[in-house]
Amino acid sequence: LTVASVDVRDKTAEHSVQQDAVTHPIFKETDPRKIREIIRRGEWTKPTRGMAYGYTQANLAIVPKSEAYDFLVFCQRNPKPCPVLEVTEVGDPEPRLTAPGADIRTDLGKYRIFRNGKFAEEVTDLKEHWRDDFVAFLLGCSLTFEGALLANGVPIRQIEERRGPTIFKTNIPCKPAGKFRGPLVVSMRPMPPDKAIRAIQVTSRFPSTHGAPVHVGDPSLIGIEDINNPDWGVGVTVKPGEVPVFWACGVTPQAVALEAKVEIMITHSPGCMFIMDIRDEQLTVM
Amino acid sequence: LTVASVDVRDKTAEHSVQQDAVTHPIFKETDPRKIREIIRRGEWTKPTRGMAYGYTQANLAIVPKSEAYDFLVFCQRNPKPCPVLEVTEVGDPEPRLTAPGADIRTDLGKYRIFRNGKFAEEVTDLKEHWRDDFVAFLLGCSLTFEGALLANGVPIRQIEERRGPTIFKTNIPCKPAGKFRGPLVVSMRPMPPDKAIRAIQVTSRFPSTHGAPVHVGDPSLIGIEDINNPDWGVGVTVKPGEVPVFWACGVTPQAVALEAKVEIMITHSPGCMFIMDIRDEQLTVM
Repeated sequence: LTVASVDVRDKTAEHSVQQDAVTHPIFKETDPRKIREIIRRGEWTKPTRGMAYGYTQANLAIVPKSEAYDFLVFCQRNPKPCPVLEVTEVGDPEPRLTAPGADIRTDLGKYRIFRNGKFAEEVTDLKEHWRDDFVAFLLGCSLTFEGALLANGVPIRQIEERRGPTIFKTNIPCKPAGKFRGPLVVSMRPMPPDKAIRAIQVTSRFPSTHGAPVHVGDPSLIGIEDINNPDWGVGVTVKPGEVPVFWACGVTPQAVALEAKVEIMITHSPGCMFIMDIRDEQLTVM
Repeated sequence: LTVASVDVRDKTAEHSVQQDAVTHPIFKETDPRKIREIIRRGEWTKPTRGMAYGYTQANLAIVPKSEAYDFLVFCQRNPKPCPVLEVTEVGDPEPRLTAPGADIRTDLGKYRIFRNGKFAEEVTDLKEHWRDDFVAFLLGCSLTFEGALLANGVPIRQIEERRGPTIFKTNIPCKPAGKFRGPLVVSMRPMPPDKAIRAIQVTSRFPSTHGAPVHVGDPSLIGIEDINNPDWGVGVTVKPGEVPVFWACGVTPQAVALEAKVEIMITHSPGCMFIMDIRDEQLTVM
């Protein structure tokens, strides 16, 4: 793994189970705007899992305008790993469509800044770092469909075992665009076959947040050698009779952008997602 | 209506019922590649409705790279009228993902060239007009879901009455991007309420080709004053007890780009669509 990959490695805590006590008043808020205000005031800089149940949480990727066209074409060509929920106006830190009034520079708990594909620093706001040529991409996150899986009786081993994420690089190439190219990255969840069928149905409703799985069963068919040894995160128990189910993962676009060594890229820190005004159910196609 | 609008007016024959005899050998071909070869040789310059049943036919919009980012963001923000199926590489006339080996300059029967938002000329190939800064957008077309409607027993009055299309400007604004802004344009199909329910289900499976309707019932609620007097095409009979059902229409992005007076824009001529290697069913989410 290159340095860039290692930096990406722990950027996957969108999937991770929050170990922190959820006693902070922020967890009592049900309005995304109020949660963003608390974060904006600097009172919360930790993961957002469990907040504002039912509202969509998004991955953040900020790149300069000079990279934005190719990055957007890459997302268009690879909608399963890179489902675009909003592209902000150049230089404008307000996601006017999915969270009007929000400020992308302050409304996430923590950010990571990468220069030329290498991790540079972690910051709690972007007031000093924002540039008038920045474009923010808000991308769908699997937190959305995980709620739907649980609501449908599909167990998530990573939550049961309070560990994870379990994420692998595959031998499936993404469709390249400009300098952006690389393998599809997937997250794995093991489950009995009947639950896998239900999971395929449930996540098909959510094309904006990775959609249906990309693979089910034999990991070697997509280039995964050891199901217990993920490329990011940690393994979870695969019980006898269970099949691993693989979804396209939001790590893909960040990994690809970092490998492309863009001059500067800013992302959310692991698990510190952007909370939108739209609800998960609004992202379903039916 | 401005000149630009009038020029767009008859660009909607993607919906129209082909009156030509279908005795030409091209209608016997079932392979999109063979159909494109016939068109490439200049042997067919008319509409493509009814060809290669089951394969996806697409709207074409070519703009210079200087306009492509804003146009792509506009499409991302307005996925119902502007479902992007492929964005070609800058200057490359081959749609490598949806029709490898095809040539966008020759494989449509007829093209229309617009300069500064005004119709300039109609040509049968783009060999002399192609520029190395051109980007081709292939956009979903309602021909795809019309086949699925018929297969599900939903009648299409425009086909029954061998007329149409029936297309209206609404008072629903598209979400703007850069210079691209304007109202949503919709196509209308009247049907009994039970068929409307089935039509909603069926087209929900096709988010890449306009998806579910945007409105059903009272036309005045979306700014349509006279259901018998469409802005483009001609009206069809709405029988007693029927409801009009309105879908986002592929005329929207072309109309918006022309109103924005882009320096040059090239589209397919009415009904002369681009036939892809992918099948309609492959565009469904389930």
